[in-house]
Formats: sequence, structure tokens, C-alpha cells
Amino acid sequence: MRVHIIGTGLLGASLGLALSAQGHQVSLEDTSPTAQQLAADLGAGQVGAPEHPDIVVVATPPDVAARVIAAALGDFPNATVTDVASVKTRLLEAVRELVTGTQLDRYIGCHPMAGREKSGAIAAQSDLFTARPWVICSDEDTPADRLGEVIAMAEDTGASVLHLDPRIHDAAVAKVSHVPQIVSSLVASQLRHAPLEEISLAGQGLRDVTRIAASDPGLWTQILTGNAEEVRSVLVALRTELDEVIGALELGPGSTGLLAKAIALGNEGHDRIPGKHGQPPTTYAVVTILVPDTPGMLARLFKDIGDLGVNVEDFRMDHASGRKLGMVDVSVVPAIQQELEIGLLSKGWQIPESAIEKEGTA
Amino acid sequence: MRVHIIGTGLLGASLGLALSAQGHQVSLEDTSPTAQQLAADLGAGQVGAPEHPDIVVVATPPDVAARVIAAALGDFPNATVTDVASVKTRLLEAVRELVTGTQLDRYIGCHPMAGREKSGAIAAQSDLFTARPWVICSDEDTPADRLGEVIAMAEDTGASVLHLDPRIHDAAVAKVSHVPQIVSSLVASQLRHAPLEEISLAGQGLRDVTRIAASDPGLWTQILTGNAEEVRSVLVALRTELDEVIGALELGPGSTGLLAKAIALGNEGHDRIPGKHGQPPTTYAVVTILVPDTPGMLARLFKDIGDLGVNVEDFRMDHASGRKLGMVDVSVVPAIQQELEIGLLSKGWQIPESAIEKEGTA
Repeated sequence: MRVHIIGTGLLGASLGLALSAQGHQVSLEDTSPTAQQLAADLGAGQVGAPEHPDIVVVATPPDVAARVIAAALGDFPNATVTDVASVKTRLLEAVRELVTGTQLDRYIGCHPMAGREKSGAIAAQSDLFTARPWVICSDEDTPADRLGEVIAMAEDTGASVLHLDPRIHDAAVAKVSHVPQIVSSLVASQLRHAPLEEISLAGQGLRDVTRIAASDPGLWTQILTGNAEEVRSVLVALRTELDEVIGALELGPGSTGLLAKAIALGNEGHDRIPGKHGQPPTTYAVVTILVPDTPGMLARLFKDIGDLGVNVEDFRMDHASGRKLGMVDVSVVPAIQQELEIGLLSKGWQIPESAIEKEGTA
Repeated sequence: MRVHIIGTGLLGASLGLALSAQGHQVSLEDTSPTAQQLAADLGAGQVGAPEHPDIVVVATPPDVAARVIAAALGDFPNATVTDVASVKTRLLEAVRELVTGTQLDRYIGCHPMAGREKSGAIAAQSDLFTARPWVICSDEDTPADRLGEVIAMAEDTGASVLHLDPRIHDAAVAKVSHVPQIVSSLVASQLRHAPLEEISLAGQGLRDVTRIAASDPGLWTQILTGNAEEVRSVLVALRTELDEVIGALELGPGSTGLLAKAIALGNEGHDRIPGKHGQPPTTYAVVTILVPDTPGMLARLFKDIGDLGVNVEDFRMDHASGRKLGMVDVSVVPAIQQELEIGLLSKGWQIPESAIEKEGTA
């Protein structure tokens, strides 16, 4: 396929690298000649527009995307035009105002859910889209052959294609991405003036909740303003529940029911989040192993696990406070938990929560 | 030491297991004869109170702790009395109302920061306190020899002892533990009615923010009511910032400054959270490696890292959506990042973000 990419920042340049690696003929265009040349030098494609590209990908900043999409539909009258913007409804409305009639049938909005803290072509990577969701927002008017082209391109980057209505997409990213970002930032913000002796009690719970609070303010301001309505509506619902919790804490002893409800509703929502690889939620068995913090110990652990023929579904290191000792949680399918525990205990590992060890003690 | 433990739930029974393993003489007492016998059967100690224990540990539910502490100070007139409750100020006030004069000098409040989702003696483990902070709230009236006994006992469980004023302790756990718990629950709660196709876009950010939303409502209701004032005060500050964000989202384009500020304040707070092992914040270099999701691959990876003599500071598996391929983030001290990348690339690993690989491509 001949793919023309307009905008050679992180996403555009990464897409060029990924598609070039798959043998596609990629051309590049950017308002900045320097950015355009850098992307080409990195191997993302050739500078300049071909006469008849099959697909034009608009990978500009969101605030100019609608105008560039409309121009591309005019400039390349046979091409399928797509984009990579992270908010879809507002963009589609803006494009509709700028183009007329059947031209719109050639536009298929996309959102590859990939990104980095860094930006620009210099941060591009051919694997950026690997194993990430690539949302395609098509409708009944979308010609099947054009949709097929976009799907083929997305899959050639290694992404997993998902089809969603633009409104559902925007509501989804508000809940699963934009609101968690804001709330993580708000929790971290409360630590700004806490004395260091208070913060020294931080554990893994706080670290998990605030990890994404390290994100870039500039990028997130664009994303949040682009999806303001959906994000606001989720935040308002969250604030109502927050007000109930604050009210319950003021009430004193009689309010335990309200507090229990708030935590229980969180349990309910938590249980709906799918497991690894987008599969439905799975309850894995977790085996916790004590690991001395010295070079080679993790290697030994994972070698021993590998020797047992056990596939690790997930793992996590729990940070210890003040001691050179870590706890590693290894998630496995429940059927092999006992086998793993017996195997690791026999190899001398400490498994404090081991069901087998407890039976032995009793 | 002769240690008498009153209350044989998760914490009391775990403490008994830990201290028995260190050769201390542990006795157990619980209002439930079944719970008391179970803890003894598991090896946590002997049923019944000795005549002259050195230390009495009150490990009852928080709502009866003050009464039991006061009774223990009377029943064991030579013993040092301590407890494990997770909120200290209110408990200390309640104990002060119940006991008189120098009796209070024998009480030293503690909070070992350990716990599990499960409860009861059946979930006890001798390593529960290993590498966890154990907060001791003593003051200038605390006799040095009694304080020394409590420190020795705490250290014998493998915990890391910290000395904090009760008010500072309560303010600290509100910020680093109680508020993150509530907010995580509130974010997860917003997913209760989201269609599964929306939730399928969930990524690692959401998973991190909502991990602790799986916690037990009953336990957390007790903790939150016990620290209601401190938790409320942090939540009110957080709500003020949340209101600013919601207001900014209503304002539209002119509001980007407010949104950028909210994310930037989160950056600032995030940067104050200490690194691994309670050390001051350190910025580790993160190397991301693509790992096929087949048995033995993690073993191979960590063996290769170990063979390079590299110490892993932290690691994390990023869940892929719809594909059998994982991304493993390995954190190392910045000085050895390049060495690790060269080593792993030479062993055939894919490192999409490798600075070295990019130089090679350019």
C-alpha cells in the first residue's frame, strides 16, 4: 500500500517506521521541514506526497486535525483518509462542517491507543502500536473496501483492531483513561506539602494509585479539553459519591453504612475490569515469594519457575520499606498454584503465604 | 521475652507465629475460644495468660481496643502494654480517659503497617510484618527500658521500626493510605454500569489506579471512621481541586491553564514519594523489553539480566490487549542502562525504545 502520513510527530513517525518495516510505501509531510526530514532520516518514509496514495493518515495535533483531514479529502480525491486523534466525536463534527456529500465516506476516524511520555519523531518507535488497541470508528456509510484497507494497515502495525461508535469511544476513554489520570494527579497533589516523615509510610497502594500522576501536563491539557463533556460528566458522578463519603465522615459512628457502601461499589466496578490480553476477568492465584535484593536473585527465581514449566500470567514486586528484601507476587492459573509452591519450596524459596507450608505447620 | 497477645485475628496470630519462631514465649487470649484455639493449633503460642508477661499486645478490633488496653494495664501491673491499631490519636485519648497517673507510662501505642485482604487466624503468616514499617508512638514520659522492649519485639518480627507522634501518624496514613483507598474505590465505582466494550479499552493506568479498589468494605469502614477527621480534611482539599478541574472543563478553550496546573501539581506531589526501601526518591532508568507470553521466556529474560550482573530495582509487566505478547519494564540505576540494553540486544531481545538501537537505525 501507498500510505501518506501528514504530521511526523511521535505517532506519525512511529506509524511510518512500523509500515515501512512491513514493506509498505510510506511518504511523509509536516509543516516543519526539520521534523519531516528527521522522520525520513530515522527510516519512517520518503519526504513528499505521491500522486495517488491509497491511504492518507492525518497525525497532526488535535486542534488542526479537522482542517487537515478536510484538505486531504480534497487534495487526494481517491484516497481513504484517516487520523489518530484521541477524541473522536468533536473531530467528526468538525470534519462534517468542512466537507460535503460523499467526500465524507472516504474519511474513517481512528484512535490507536498508544503513546509515550516523550514526544516528537525522535521518540518514535516501530513497535509503538504493538499489542495496543487500535479503535476504528466507521459507520454504515463506510465503504467496505476502504474499511478493509484501514483494518489491514492497523493490523500491520501489530495493533489489535476494535470497532466502536465515536460517542462510545469518547465515553470509554473518559472512564478508563481520562478520569483515572485526573484523579491520580489529585491524590498526588495532596502530598505536595506533606512532611517527608509522613511520606515515608507510603506503600505499594499509594505508588500504584499515583504512578500516572507523573504524566505530561501539556499533552493532557489537550486531551482533556478535547473530551471535556464526557470527562466532566464522569467527574461530576464521582464528586457526588465523594460528597457522600465526606458527609459520612462528618456524621460519625452512625455513618458506617455509607462508608461500607462506597468501598463495596468500588469492589463492583473493579471486578468488571478485564484481565490480561483483553480476555474477560480471570481470577489468578497469586504466589508471594520473598526475594533478597541482590543481583541474580530474580534471575534465579524466574529460572526456577521456568524449569517448573509454569507460565507466569503477571508479576509484581512489592517494595519493602527500609530493608533489602523484596516480595514478588507471581500470578498463575489456579490449577498450577500448588505445583508451583511445592516446586519453589523444594528449591529453597520462602513463600510466607503458602497453603502447603501452613498445612505442614498445623 | 514473655509476650501475651490479646486478640488472635490476622494480626495477633501472625505476631504470635513470628515471635514464637524467634524463640519468645507467647501466650494467647481471645473472647472467642475457637479463634484462640485455632491460633494455638497453628503454632502462634499457648492458650492462657502467664502471671508476669513482659509485654502485652492488644490486637483486638479497634472499637474495643481502648477498653482492653485499660484492663490489661490493671491486670498485668508490671507489663508494658502495646497495641496494633491503625489509628492512634483517638485511641490514645480514649485510653487516657480510662486509666490514671503513671499507669499510662506503661502503654506504648504501635501500628505495624501490615495486612491482607483475608482476615482471621487462618490467614495468619509468620512473615506478615517482614520488611513493613512498624510505627511506634512514644513520648518523653515513656520509660526507655519499656520502649527498648517494644522496639526489640517489633524488630524480631522483621519489621522496620519508625517513631512518630500519633497526630503525625494519623495525618500520614490519611494521605498515603486512607485517601488513596477511597479515591481508588470511587474511580472503580464509575465503571459499574459501563458497557463491556468500553471497559475493553482499559490499560495499565486504570489497572494501577484501581488495584486497591478490591479491598474489604468491612475493614475499611472501621479504619476510615477511626481516622475520620484527618481523612475528611484531605478529602475536602482534594474536592476543592476537583471542583476547579470540573469548572475548567465547563469553561471550554479558555481553561487550559487550570487543567495544566492540576496535572502539574500532581507531578509535584508524585516526585515526593520515596523510592524503593524507603530511600529518597530516585529516578531509575526504565528499559522496556518485548516478551512472548510463553513458559520460560521470563526465566530466560531474568537469567540473561542476571548473567549481565545487573541488579533490577523494580519491574512491571504491561498487559497487552488481545495479543499473546507482553512488555516488561525493568528499572535499573541510570549508569548501567546502556550496558543492559547492549547486553540484551546482543542476546536477541527486542527493546523498542532502546537508545542504542535508534542510533544504529539512523
